[in-house]
Amino acid sequence: MKNLHQRAEILMEALPYIKAYHGKTVVIKYGGGAMTSVALKESIASDIVLMKLVGISPVIIHGGGLEITAMMKRLDLPVEFIGGLRKTDAEAMDIVKMVLVGKINKEIVSLINRHGRMAVGLSGDDGGLIAARKKKHQPDLGFVGDIDRINARVLKDLIADDYVPVIASIGAGEQGESYNINADTVAAEVAAAIKADKVIFLTDVEGLYRDFAQKHTLISALSYKECKKMVSGKEIDGGMLPKVAGCMRAIEAGVSRAHILNGTIPHAMLLEIFTNEGIGTMISGD
Amino acid sequence: MKNLHQRAEILMEALPYIKAYHGKTVVIKYGGGAMTSVALKESIASDIVLMKLVGISPVIIHGGGLEITAMMKRLDLPVEFIGGLRKTDAEAMDIVKMVLVGKINKEIVSLINRHGRMAVGLSGDDGGLIAARKKKHQPDLGFVGDIDRINARVLKDLIADDYVPVIASIGAGEQGESYNINADTVAAEVAAAIKADKVIFLTDVEGLYRDFAQKHTLISALSYKECKKMVSGKEIDGGMLPKVAGCMRAIEAGVSRAHILNGTIPHAMLLEIFTNEGIGTMISGD
Amino acid sequence: MKNLHQRAEILMEALPYIKAYHGKTVVIKYGGGAMTSVALKESIASDIVLMKLVGISPVIIHGGGLEITAMMKRLDLPVEFIGGLRKTDAEAMDIVKMVLVGKINKEIVSLINRHGRMAVGLSGDDGGLIAARKKKHQPDLGFVGDIDRINARVLKDLIADDYVPVIASIGAGEQGESYNINADTVAAEVAAAIKADKVIFLTDVEGLYRDFAQKHTLISALSYKECKKMVSGKEIDGGMLPKVAGCMRAIEAGVSRAHILNGTIPHAMLLEIFTNEGIGTMISGD
Amino acid sequence: MKNLHQRAEILMEALPYIKAYHGKTVVIKYGGGAMTSVALKESIASDIVLMKLVGISPVIIHGGGLEITAMMKRLDLPVEFIGGLRKTDAEAMDIVKMVLVGKINKEIVSLINRHGRMAVGLSGDDGGLIAARKKKHQPDLGFVGDIDRINARVLKDLIADDYVPVIASIGAGEQGESYNINADTVAAEVAAAIKADKVIFLTDVEGLYRDFAQKHTLISALSYKECKKMVSGKEIDGGMLPKVAGCMRAIEAGVSRAHILNGTIPHAMLLEIFTNEGIGTMISGD
Amino acid sequence: MKNLHQRAEILMEALPYIKAYHGKTVVIKYGGGAMTSVALKESIASDIVLMKLVGISPVIIHGGGLEITAMMKRLDLPVEFIGGLRKTDAEAMDIVKMVLVGKINKEIVSLINRHGRMAVGLSGDDGGLIAARKKKHQPDLGFVGDIDRINARVLKDLIADDYVPVIASIGAGEQGESYNINADTVAAEVAAAIKADKVIFLTDVEGLYRDFAQKHTLISALSYKECKKMVSGKEIDGGMLPKVAGCMRAIEAGVSRAHILNGTIPHAMLLEIFTNEGIGTMISGD
Amino acid sequence: MKNLHQRAEILMEALPYIKAYHGKTVVIKYGGGAMTSVALKESIASDIVLMKLVGISPVIIHGGGLEITAMMKRLDLPVEFIGGLRKTDAEAMDIVKMVLVGKINKEIVSLINRHGRMAVGLSGDDGGLIAARKKKHQPDLGFVGDIDRINARVLKDLIADDYVPVIASIGAGEQGESYNINADTVAAEVAAAIKADKVIFLTDVEGLYRDFAQKHTLISALSYKECKKMVSGKEIDGGMLPKVAGCMRAIEAGVSRAHILNGTIPHAMLLEIFTNEGIGTMISGD
Repeated sequence: MKNLHQRAEILMEALPYIKAYHGKTVVIKYGGGAMTSVALKESIASDIVLMKLVGISPVIIHGGGLEITAMMKRLDLPVEFIGGLRKTDAEAMDIVKMVLVGKINKEIVSLINRHGRMAVGLSGDDGGLIAARKKKHQPDLGFVGDIDRINARVLKDLIADDYVPVIASIGAGEQGESYNINADTVAAEVAAAIKADKVIFLTDVEGLYRDFAQKHTLISALSYKECKKMVSGKEIDGGMLPKVAGCMRAIEAGVSRAHILNGTIPHAMLLEIFTNEGIGTMISGD
Repeated sequence: MKNLHQRAEILMEALPYIKAYHGKTVVIKYGGGAMTSVALKESIASDIVLMKLVGISPVIIHGGGLEITAMMKRLDLPVEFIGGLRKTDAEAMDIVKMVLVGKINKEIVSLINRHGRMAVGLSGDDGGLIAARKKKHQPDLGFVGDIDRINARVLKDLIADDYVPVIASIGAGEQGESYNINADTVAAEVAAAIKADKVIFLTDVEGLYRDFAQKHTLISALSYKECKKMVSGKEIDGGMLPKVAGCMRAIEAGVSRAHILNGTIPHAMLLEIFTNEGIGTMISGD
Repeated sequence: MKNLHQRAEILMEALPYIKAYHGKTVVIKYGGGAMTSVALKESIASDIVLMKLVGISPVIIHGGGLEITAMMKRLDLPVEFIGGLRKTDAEAMDIVKMVLVGKINKEIVSLINRHGRMAVGLSGDDGGLIAARKKKHQPDLGFVGDIDRINARVLKDLIADDYVPVIASIGAGEQGESYNINADTVAAEVAAAIKADKVIFLTDVEGLYRDFAQKHTLISALSYKECKKMVSGKEIDGGMLPKVAGCMRAIEAGVSRAHILNGTIPHAMLLEIFTNEGIGTMISGD
Repeated sequence: MKNLHQRAEILMEALPYIKAYHGKTVVIKYGGGAMTSVALKESIASDIVLMKLVGISPVIIHGGGLEITAMMKRLDLPVEFIGGLRKTDAEAMDIVKMVLVGKINKEIVSLINRHGRMAVGLSGDDGGLIAARKKKHQPDLGFVGDIDRINARVLKDLIADDYVPVIASIGAGEQGESYNINADTVAAEVAAAIKADKVIFLTDVEGLYRDFAQKHTLISALSYKECKKMVSGKEIDGGMLPKVAGCMRAIEAGVSRAHILNGTIPHAMLLEIFTNEGIGTMISGD
Repeated sequence: MKNLHQRAEILMEALPYIKAYHGKTVVIKYGGGAMTSVALKESIASDIVLMKLVGISPVIIHGGGLEITAMMKRLDLPVEFIGGLRKTDAEAMDIVKMVLVGKINKEIVSLINRHGRMAVGLSGDDGGLIAARKKKHQPDLGFVGDIDRINARVLKDLIADDYVPVIASIGAGEQGESYNINADTVAAEVAAAIKADKVIFLTDVEGLYRDFAQKHTLISALSYKECKKMVSGKEIDGGMLPKVAGCMRAIEAGVSRAHILNGTIPHAMLLEIFTNEGIGTMISGD
Repeated sequence: MKNLHQRAEILMEALPYIKAYHGKTVVIKYGGGAMTSVALKESIASDIVLMKLVGISPVIIHGGGLEITAMMKRLDLPVEFIGGLRKTDAEAMDIVKMVLVGKINKEIVSLINRHGRMAVGLSGDDGGLIAARKKKHQPDLGFVGDIDRINARVLKDLIADDYVPVIASIGAGEQGESYNINADTVAAEVAAAIKADKVIFLTDVEGLYRDFAQKHTLISALSYKECKKMVSGKEIDGGMLPKVAGCMRAIEAGVSRAHILNGTIPHAMLLEIFTNEGIGTMISGD
């Protein structure tokens, strides 16, 4: 009986958070760092399902660099990164698409759908979702692209019909060619295009640190302004820059709050959203 | 961190139940026995709010015999019960209405609405919800009534507009006169009329017992058939008969499951609906 | 046959007025002075029903001071007015609510619903309709309140679903406490919040007089400007001030016309709305 | 004041009838006999407008034999009737259409629309409303037709968009040819096709008589069965047979009540529908 | 097989045009010059049907001067034109209406409806579509009118319900009188009122010429500005002025493109809209 | 000009077919045999777009055996077929999914979307579209599956939102595992589930032959009954059996017509649907 009582109390603690997020849209960037085990993937899928059932509309964006590299190696294709960007020739682009769209996307969709038939996978081609063009870069990176425009109609239609869209970060060029696009950027632009209430970057670090070497300097919350100052003061670790840039881009477009969470903690999103203790870094739009 | 992990697990345990009840309608009879303290009332209100937020449509029915008796005594009006039914002359009927509709109903509405503006109070007059006629009874009971018909349109409209209807068990006669109606009966008939998925009777006992004197004989679950046999075998305690009759009436009308719970246990409904351990008696329509 | 012909002509005379008001919203303040007999109440109810059936959306606001006083006296509770406002301690507030919500509101709902199931009663708690706070006043008046905000969603939903809302002038405080609010003020604020086309104050005097002592000085129509001048020139009888203030507040919020009618004349509203001869005072927003 | 009171009472007398017909569909056959003066046409138009404003959906069917004959004579075309049916060669058919659709239909539409923009004229071609074929008849009657099928979609769409359809009794053949069709038949078939609640035949006699020569034998109400017996007993005047057949056809298709009224009495429909004294003959389906 | 291949190619050529016009609204003025043979009328009707089926919303406006004159002559009524405008006394107005509404309008509706039940005929009375007043003119022209206002609701409702409106150019005066209105003007004002994407004037000349005497000077396309200059330079043939004025009025109101086509060429609209070679003159809004 | 005239005629020839198929749903199985060149794929994509634009709802199903085999060979994985079915171990299944979903599906989507943003790719996981289970087979085939159930909601939602669904023939098992499913079977079951009006199998032969060796014995049309007799008489070529079985299954489920076409003929579907000469074999449901 006492056990029951405790459980009831914990469920009740979620109530104000459920109220606060009811009817809101949350874009979740789900990166390779948080895809390391089946248990972890299942934990994230069930978090998404719970969010959906309590009235939140989640939209998932994913990349999948590690599996792309693995497949390319298996096919004896060269793997080369220039400034953190994968050099992507036509053959590599085919592999990128097959792995992201045909494997990782379907895996996420399938894990969510074991709780119901709510997830629908999309890539940038579907409904013309991510219009892209070749990234201008020296040296040439091949089919690495920049976003031209998010055509959000297909997302809005799916959300209105009560589905959870799961998006592979592939862009569609004007001539039908595909582009490999940074998933953090896609998450930020999608959040901007659908005017999401929140964007969450699930990664494999705890969040931002005042001093990365010192774990106790983790920053729980900071304002957009402070964040901007840290960026211009080069106080942010290079690996975190794309995520931080994504957070800032989303906030500039009107998203209220952006989070960087350690997705390897089981149910990280659940804890961040439905309990009082934030577990990562939250950047708020003032 | 360990604490966080435990919380996450408990939230996760609710997931299959939230899935199962998403989109369902649940009629809740909320009786005097579970209105004994402010804390209890708040606990029930927050349970209702949580149910609503996770996609359940709750409909509340309440009586309020104790407060009626208190007010009548204060006004030096005679209080008389015949076979468990309150003799209700015209003056008493006025008091019944004022207390149920003007006091208890508004109190429940107000407690729910502290979490949002979702509850709307109704009595049998509103939208012609409970059409009633005088109960045939010897000796005459005055304005004690039987239900003629539940006109569910106003309920369906409010549910469709996302409100939580809270219903005082007053019936409306053809000439505009009011009738005092047993709230258990109203709950059963409302559940039948709106084809609810579940009806819950919150009372102050644990449920049905094989042998009321022996606490360990509490029945967790029984079928409609078994229940019927117990009734005809007179194995059910007199005080429980209206609730049991309500359960059976609801099941006969197509409601799948009827519950008798001890509403004085904090968050009794939450525990019954969202955890695996049933805490009362469930009668299922097999 | 001649008789028939006359009847046809009278029905036909209503045609241009029915056309003019079709699809309009009319807020009606129904005060104690016009609740003095059953016949009168029935006459007002049938006027409201006729309005509804010819395409007008009526919204009723009522108070009920006389019955409150009667009940308080019956309970040996002190009745005290300070500057026209009822001193309302916690116990009195309970009585106010029970009488307004549990008795008068239901009586009006019931009278209308004898013509169909169109009326639904509301108090300030329902759907969070009337958010209120304690009135600042010296000496302290207890639970007498001012309106913070009309949350019109529940009204709009009910009107869209073709119901006639009947509102008791009780406000809901932030902590769930109730406030006694002047019904004229509620009528004006509700008319403002739902952008009504017309507001009607049914009282027991004919309207405004140039000189109250001289019956022949009744003012049929005056502009908002003239009305304001009369108020600042203190030419208006004290008892009429709340109604006149309500008219002016409504007009300031965009309501086109405000009327003060003698509700004790049978079918006063019918005559005012559907015949050429106005029977009270109309203040127009120029 | 006394005058005002009388008016109020007469308006109030209409209330139960307005309630009873609210939301109902009424098909009105408006024949040449009731088109004899401008005043009469205006009276009928205003009756239709009043019906529309109090929530009834009227659908008007009209013929116009007298004006057709007048125009044909003016054009020196032969006018010939065989068994009450107009022999209609191709040239005559052109005239029939021009007069019915281009003159009479537009006149009725225009009279109604002086009260608002609610009427829309239709002939059998519009939206394929009246599919017809050549009437088999010896001797040949030319372009006189029988109804194949009422395609009610255009009517239902216009009613749903809140218009009053006004229909000229012209049928559309498969090859695009037009047919002259008896307007009583069109009224009956339209009432059947849209499942009207009532059909009214406005003509220039009072109704059915037990004995046509004796005015005091006017029948106020009779059942479908009695009516059928009178028809098979040849007790009905030949001129009334098409109307009576129309009434019976409509009732057989599920219309509850069919009326034959003297449309030359000003506001005949108003008196029939909104007052207690029926002025013509009502045939009821029972 | 080769034949089949050619056909496929021609169908395919239409694809980009179908894409471009999908969901667009096109107003078509269909004048007497293009009504000279049954084959021609059928060709125009089938063009309209094809446009409708591929997702364009066509709205047809027609006049019919030649048939009006013929009927007037048959009735020995005087036919007089003053400055290109038909003097129209009351009797003539009746004929105008009968011929336009009862004959020509129904003929067009019927030709379209042989392909489905999509056309609905309207005149200015229906739904109050064309509010008009007497044209000020010396000498007096009788019932010749100017447009006061297009009340587009009935058009929008019919288009939304998937009908093809076919409009006779008759205006409705305030007192119910009718006016003869230039159909080119009606087309321009209707296109303006419904914010059409394109307006097409089907006439019996090829389009605008730089020099009317020299066929090879036909202008394929010109801008609004150039057109205006030609008008002020009096370089446009008098007979073309109403059409040119209609084009310019439509463009001023926001229509993107206006066309003058030779409607006597079979499937002129089809060729203009669905093939690359324009066959008439297109005026574009810059 | 003569050329123009011819073009107009050919467009006009399509009119009756456009009318007949407007609003219909057509399921298209698009197999490897018709994916042999870029030009061919573009031709099929533009046929689909034209169908969509003229009001048909196409749903595309595709397989892709050749590309799967190519990729498996590249990865040095064994390729083995047993009775025409690909033996598919876990590793092979990954490749099947990546090629079908990540490559071929996206290629088709992309080709269609160059004409607009109308195509959305799906695999059996998305929205739980194709619920499947392991095929019972000796010897074991690994992840080759049979369809349990088509969950058509996601298809219906996408069609209602005006998209063209493009489906990869992958089934989703209960534990989240994937199954390789015959695309002909998926096409037949999808057509059955959404009650399509027509199903088309695009392959690389002309259709059914009475005698496969004799080209002139191609069967243009046959009834379901005849087809059944041919199957039981073993008169059908083994390679055609899955298509013929798909046709018959669809017809049994209520689809009216099933076609087998040679998809290597440019615009084969266009010619089959929009011209009078059928180019393949049509099986009709009696």
